Amino acid sequence: MGCLAVVAGSFAQQALGQRPKVKSPVINDDGSVTFNLYAPATQQVSVTGDFEEIHAVTLPMTKGADGVWTVTTPPLNPELYSYSLTVDGQRFIDPGNSYVNRDISTLSNIFIVSKDTDDKGHLYQVNDVPHGTLSRVWYDSPTLGQQRRMTVYLPAAYDGTRRFPVLYLLHGHGGDETAWGDLGRTSQIMDNLIAEGKAVPMIVVMPNGNPTCNAAPGWWHEGMYTPDGNAFNERGAKATMEESFMDIVGFVDSHYQTIPEREARAVSGLSMGGGHTFGISRLYPETFDYYGLMSAAARMKPGDADFEGQMARLFASKPKLYWIAIGKEDFLMDMNNQLRSYLNAKGYPYEYYENDGGHIWRNWRIYLTMFAQRLFRDL
Amino acid sequence: MGCLAVVAGSFAQQALGQRPKVKSPVINDDGSVTFNLYAPATQQVSVTGDFEEIHAVTLPMTKGADGVWTVTTPPLNPELYSYSLTVDGQRFIDPGNSYVNRDISTLSNIFIVSKDTDDKGHLYQVNDVPHGTLSRVWYDSPTLGQQRRMTVYLPAAYDGTRRFPVLYLLHGHGGDETAWGDLGRTSQIMDNLIAEGKAVPMIVVMPNGNPTCNAAPGWWHEGMYTPDGNAFNERGAKATMEESFMDIVGFVDSHYQTIPEREARAVSGLSMGGGHTFGISRLYPETFDYYGLMSAAARMKPGDADFEGQMARLFASKPKLYWIAIGKEDFLMDMNNQLRSYLNAKGYPYEYYENDGGHIWRNWRIYLTMFAQRLFRDL
Repeated sequence: MGCLAVVAGSFAQQALGQRPKVKSPVINDDGSVTFNLYAPATQQVSVTGDFEEIHAVTLPMTKGADGVWTVTTPPLNPELYSYSLTVDGQRFIDPGNSYVNRDISTLSNIFIVSKDTDDKGHLYQVNDVPHGTLSRVWYDSPTLGQQRRMTVYLPAAYDGTRRFPVLYLLHGHGGDETAWGDLGRTSQIMDNLIAEGKAVPMIVVMPNGNPTCNAAPGWWHEGMYTPDGNAFNERGAKATMEESFMDIVGFVDSHYQTIPEREARAVSGLSMGGGHTFGISRLYPETFDYYGLMSAAARMKPGDADFEGQMARLFASKPKLYWIAIGKEDFLMDMNNQLRSYLNAKGYPYEYYENDGGHIWRNWRIYLTMFAQRLFRDL
Repeated sequence: MGCLAVVAGSFAQQALGQRPKVKSPVINDDGSVTFNLYAPATQQVSVTGDFEEIHAVTLPMTKGADGVWTVTTPPLNPELYSYSLTVDGQRFIDPGNSYVNRDISTLSNIFIVSKDTDDKGHLYQVNDVPHGTLSRVWYDSPTLGQQRRMTVYLPAAYDGTRRFPVLYLLHGHGGDETAWGDLGRTSQIMDNLIAEGKAVPMIVVMPNGNPTCNAAPGWWHEGMYTPDGNAFNERGAKATMEESFMDIVGFVDSHYQTIPEREARAVSGLSMGGGHTFGISRLYPETFDYYGLMSAAARMKPGDADFEGQMARLFASKPKLYWIAIGKEDFLMDMNNQLRSYLNAKGYPYEYYENDGGHIWRNWRIYLTMFAQRLFRDL
């Protein structure tokens, strides 16, 4: 191995010796963003990101005489953006940027554009406000026969003496207990909303919603595996997420200073987690007072006696808020239209929010921001 | 932007269409590891990692007819390894591997080789044992006039009723409150040692040791900056880490079920954190019973009356363990030799451990494993 090392090492040294100082990304004063990559021997470099906020955009980069490829976006709106570089056809993380999010098994770089203290960029960044605690907690699920991992946000005011309401926040298919904290910026959004008096201080519980996995990839005894999107469903579980959900509520009420009452409990989720929320709302109709279905995979069984009875009991219990949110381009729009038609026909009250875009984290951060401000106002 | 997007998008599509399925890294049955990268247009690819455990090794990769560059290492010993790819002279993360560690502002891929349940690889991986809780906690430091972030490991047995001893574990220069948890695998090591009965269940507190930073990069209100190694020292702090340290101990004793006694407190750190440990041992001589100086930047002032008095008081208090560990090739070996000569001359008792290698995380994980097993045995 030593001989091989010398050969390649001298190559690397030469390349390093010629290297100009490169910073990437550079967020310019007008909100435009410049990407830079030193890659003199490369034929083609581009950057792909959600710079139009809704759709991915690919921008070719051009090579300067110093071997640095560069491109500058138009001014961007305040937002958390994700991107990667494509170098001669292969997708890479920008080596100039150590800030990354993991979505299932894909890493993407992130950056935030903020122009004012009342914009989304400001809401998603860490500001000089009191910060809550973010914990990775293991709990016992008797229903699933597993030790399982979840993420718990405790508000800055939590000190073990005062009791707080709880929002249960559920991820989508292929996600895990880290998704809402990382991609969803939950602790930043909650810290900022609470500091501004826009949300009531609350505990946020973000469990793992895949009953065949104990935890996120790499954080349980399956090792550092690379999940494909389907691995979660193929192995069979002892129960569904919905059936096992009260294990989580029981653990949280017994281990944290919660207000263990219906009016102090909310549950919300995105996509598959929206489907879980839909199921939880029917299985435990007097346990939660607030429901948030975000881009929800909400599968109904109209005409089925059990389903109809569950829905009747749920709405007879008069939950304070049944909130449905989805983007105009979401591939689950038809399913959500069917749900709304059903609720309308039955006269079951709900609120509806529709915005641009599809099945993307940009929307779920917006929905969390909106939903969190509606919760526990009368406690 | 739309027009540019179409041009590069079609290029990316073509490349994707030709792409073979590539998995990287592949850990083979004999412990050798194969790296693969699809990069048909690239001229030179290599992988650089700590495959000889102590020194970085660079292995050139060779391109197959399918455009996939590949190389296989010799069989590797059980260990947590770090690596990156060099593609035409530019360092990149392996796009096949979403497991990364951040060290200051550099990301590296990681993987673990384990051959048996009693090897280091097994100790560093997540096994099917009871897991502790890992939390990012904000505390108030009156001495530094800051809200500051630290990482707290609570053992699986922690349930709010029983009290536990505390190990304070300090990072090095340029590190932060995430370093011991991520690069040091603290929660995995502690979970596994405790499950095997090799360590007493204990709380581990990993504070941020840079008094000019409230938290790790990206986790406080300075935004997503890229630190250079010196940024921490250039801005001036209200006090040193050592002077502010009892703010941390006070917070931990008031917010967790600790045993708030000397015999239930240990402090240890690596490099700069070893220097902090050295300072803390002198400033608060009857607060801790166990000290671990790992590759320590332990600056003495022999002949200085204050220093001599501090050292005399410290050893007059008879700490249960004063442990010094360093690798043969560590650039701080001279400083540690001087410290040991001083202790020998004074007759101050300590224990010494020396192993191969230098100033690297491989050694600090070993030292944590050794030190943790020595603590709190008589509680």
